[in-house]
Amino acid sequence: MGEQPTFEVFNAEFADRVKGARSRQGIDAYLGIEVTEFEPGRLVAHFDVRDELITMIGNMHGGCLAALVDHCLGVVMYPIMPPGYWAATTEFKVNYLSPVSAGRCEATAEVVSMTRRLAVVRIEIRNEDRLVALAQGTCTIVAPKAS
Amino acid sequence: MGEQPTFEVFNAEFADRVKGARSRQGIDAYLGIEVTEFEPGRLVAHFDVRDELITMIGNMHGGCLAALVDHCLGVVMYPIMPPGYWAATTEFKVNYLSPVSAGRCEATAEVVSMTRRLAVVRIEIRNEDRLVALAQGTCTIVAPKAS
Amino acid sequence: MGEQPTFEVFNAEFADRVKGARSRQGIDAYLGIEVTEFEPGRLVAHFDVRDELITMIGNMHGGCLAALVDHCLGVVMYPIMPPGYWAATTEFKVNYLSPVSAGRCEATAEVVSMTRRLAVVRIEIRNEDRLVALAQGTCTIVAPKAS
Amino acid sequence: MGEQPTFEVFNAEFADRVKGARSRQGIDAYLGIEVTEFEPGRLVAHFDVRDELITMIGNMHGGCLAALVDHCLGVVMYPIMPPGYWAATTEFKVNYLSPVSAGRCEATAEVVSMTRRLAVVRIEIRNEDRLVALAQGTCTIVAPKAS
Repeated sequence: MGEQPTFEVFNAEFADRVKGARSRQGIDAYLGIEVTEFEPGRLVAHFDVRDELITMIGNMHGGCLAALVDHCLGVVMYPIMPPGYWAATTEFKVNYLSPVSAGRCEATAEVVSMTRRLAVVRIEIRNEDRLVALAQGTCTIVAPKAS
Repeated sequence: MGEQPTFEVFNAEFADRVKGARSRQGIDAYLGIEVTEFEPGRLVAHFDVRDELITMIGNMHGGCLAALVDHCLGVVMYPIMPPGYWAATTEFKVNYLSPVSAGRCEATAEVVSMTRRLAVVRIEIRNEDRLVALAQGTCTIVAPKAS
Repeated sequence: MGEQPTFEVFNAEFADRVKGARSRQGIDAYLGIEVTEFEPGRLVAHFDVRDELITMIGNMHGGCLAALVDHCLGVVMYPIMPPGYWAATTEFKVNYLSPVSAGRCEATAEVVSMTRRLAVVRIEIRNEDRLVALAQGTCTIVAPKAS
Repeated sequence: MGEQPTFEVFNAEFADRVKGARSRQGIDAYLGIEVTEFEPGRLVAHFDVRDELITMIGNMHGGCLAALVDHCLGVVMYPIMPPGYWAATTEFKVNYLSPVSAGRCEATAEVVSMTRRLAVVRIEIRNEDRLVALAQGTCTIVAPKAS
């Protein structure tokens, strides 16, 4: 399953700037999300589970994985769109497979379909080699306003 | 649309304890999520958008709304299950309808179906009277182990 | 939950033509889907379970409910778009709540959000007063090509 | 992405019986769905688009693809569960990527996660080598009643 589409555009400079950079604000900064790989239509991003993310019940709040899914959807489209375009995360669906309580959560996001208007992205999250979440989301591609 | 099922159990003490309480850790503490209403099969929870939640682009990260959805799914089931039962958030789907940049994000979660094994919950999030996200999720109800 | 958006356009003539009409081909014709109510942003459609739809296991194939969801998504948008516009069903998510083996399956579809580009629709399916499926889907609104 | 889990059980006899067999009733019979490959946690199934499936607009009704997704979810779990167990399709989400008007629609379904209670399945549908739909669904595994 799953040969990827080909991408006509790839802004390698943007992708390289994102890799290794940490946000200073937003929920991605709180989680400490870092993108480590970024190719056309594919990125790998992770954060490390720290005590502060653990709830009273002893597991990490599932919302952390949902936020990681959302973050990947918000970032993966940028380098493959022409300048001036932007992508809005329209929706996603996520399955949680197993609770997480420590270690690294690493997401791999792949753009599996892209037209002029829409892209579909699949995201897998692993925690220390266990698959812990699977997501599928839709981004709407918005052209720059004609001037 | 949408008359609710009836619920055989309601732990009002648990629901009352949750209302108004703030977590001291976890992503719900980071967001400042507070439950303000909690009836059988229905809760209302919110957080206030603060500068720290805004990304470089000037909007709140969508992951904050996803985390709020997840939080509601994780909490709404508890008072309507018999003692010793727990509910695992199996999956959810969320549509983002509009960007958020300030004010209060308030979620209303309703259990629209509940069997012995599964519950389906719908969540609507409003930001200052605009509908900004719509979600539908599934919780798996787990019976206590026979002893 | 759930006050509807207001709709600027409503092609009542189209809606009236759809009501009571049966397709002569396509899976909707096979199922015998009939629209009985059609207002701005809301429709009610049903089909009757007949022996032919029952599988070896003795229940109706879930695909019949998925097809009904899909059909509602494909029809509900038309009267509320300006002439020349069309709506593509981008995606949907459906929860099955209970098996169906006889009687009428009736879907109520409501457009809960609509912008220039996208609409989100919720669908509830009842079988003889039991809720049997809940869905949430996204339609992409496509403007006519400038000529 | 996507190494599969290992499966402890595989009823090869059941899988072989399903391969090549056509239902005589149900929506799968109407579509003419046929399973051509069936291994542990993976199946391939198709139907051929015929004139009767085309709507007035000239494309195949999307409900046919949704029904194919549903059918795969309903079948793929059987050979990998112990005798007496059954799997209920709890929910799925499908993205439509491209309209279909002729040729063969072939789905590949893979069980990407399986616990004692739940399985997550991904389905890709191709129409003559174009990816036309992507789905992710959840099956609930139900143990036989203790006797």
